[in-house]
Amino acid sequence: MFDQERFEKQLAFIREIDKEKMIKRQSYITDCETRENDADHAWHMAIMTMLLSEYSNEKIDVLKTMTMLLIHDLVEVYAGDTYAYDEEGKKTQAEREAKAADKIYSLLPEDQGEYLKSLWLEFEDQKTPEAKFARTMDCFQPLILNDATDGRAWKEHGVKRSWVMRRNQNTGAGSEDIWAYAREHLVEKNVKNGNIIDDSSEA
Amino acid sequence: MFDQERFEKQLAFIREIDKEKMIKRQSYITDCETRENDADHAWHMAIMTMLLSEYSNEKIDVLKTMTMLLIHDLVEVYAGDTYAYDEEGKKTQAEREAKAADKIYSLLPEDQGEYLKSLWLEFEDQKTPEAKFARTMDCFQPLILNDATDGRAWKEHGVKRSWVMRRNQNTGAGSEDIWAYAREHLVEKNVKNGNIIDDSSEA
Repeated sequence: MFDQERFEKQLAFIREIDKEKMIKRQSYITDCETRENDADHAWHMAIMTMLLSEYSNEKIDVLKTMTMLLIHDLVEVYAGDTYAYDEEGKKTQAEREAKAADKIYSLLPEDQGEYLKSLWLEFEDQKTPEAKFARTMDCFQPLILNDATDGRAWKEHGVKRSWVMRRNQNTGAGSEDIWAYAREHLVEKNVKNGNIIDDSSEA
Repeated sequence: MFDQERFEKQLAFIREIDKEKMIKRQSYITDCETRENDADHAWHMAIMTMLLSEYSNEKIDVLKTMTMLLIHDLVEVYAGDTYAYDEEGKKTQAEREAKAADKIYSLLPEDQGEYLKSLWLEFEDQKTPEAKFARTMDCFQPLILNDATDGRAWKEHGVKRSWVMRRNQNTGAGSEDIWAYAREHLVEKNVKNGNIIDDSSEA
């Protein structure tokens, strides 16, 4: 039996999340001109998860991890994107995003809204293998884009090596292999060529 | 044992598919100004699949269907987007896309390239429950956007009711429920309000 009320709640959510396509990130896509939007970013990571799950430290449920990544930035429809190196914005980020989660997930039928909200919380909590691998993707993907665009976003923000290392302090918790590769071939390479400011002697 | 050669093939593919974010579709997103890109579209449909699979005529493998939708437009990185109502473009579409599939999927390690290419072919063949439901999403999603943007893309292209009905002749093959709803609440509503040209008396 088709439940039209249920369907229309799903449709209202589907219409509302379209706004994620308007949320711009700091990363440039590989044309070096267009800033990536949140939906682009989530799409890219979902495919990456499917291809790279073999490198996860622990066995992961791929569907769950992909779903987590597809929805984990939906709170930004109301809370906006908080740049990884925006220390002021990060102070209020948790509160803004918690309110946004209540608002967006309550559009859905209760069972689905609760499931997606729980997946988002699982991502935030960083305890499960899926959440850890999802974060590895969330940190690795912008490294790929920054490297492929000659560090444009890094240079615009004067990003320092210590910031990137702090941002990636748990990237290896999802995949040691991916982090070992990324550290050498994406981070240190771009420190050497000056795209990331080398502050390693300031410690 | 980390296989760096394999990983770098995966990375080359991940870098190359970034171009999908540059492929513009005819649909406008709900700001009514920005044309949707292929990655946006795929992201939206992957989430829709997760939420709406309960309406599929036949039981589907959700991970497989989501993956199919996430990758099914990658051929457009080389072949470009062919608008649903571009009759000239559609004459060469199959050939352009087959060449593009060989090119893009050969970047990957052979096992993964063959899997993704087979998923794309499965979508094109429209025989399995997953392929049918994926097409339902692929037709339903632009109806939602067109309806939500007061038919902007329909009006720009002078789209007629008969074109929409032909385009959607198999939308019900994936989900009768979704097509019944969409026909009444998205198509016929927009014929009545003039966003779609009513040519039903011309038959």
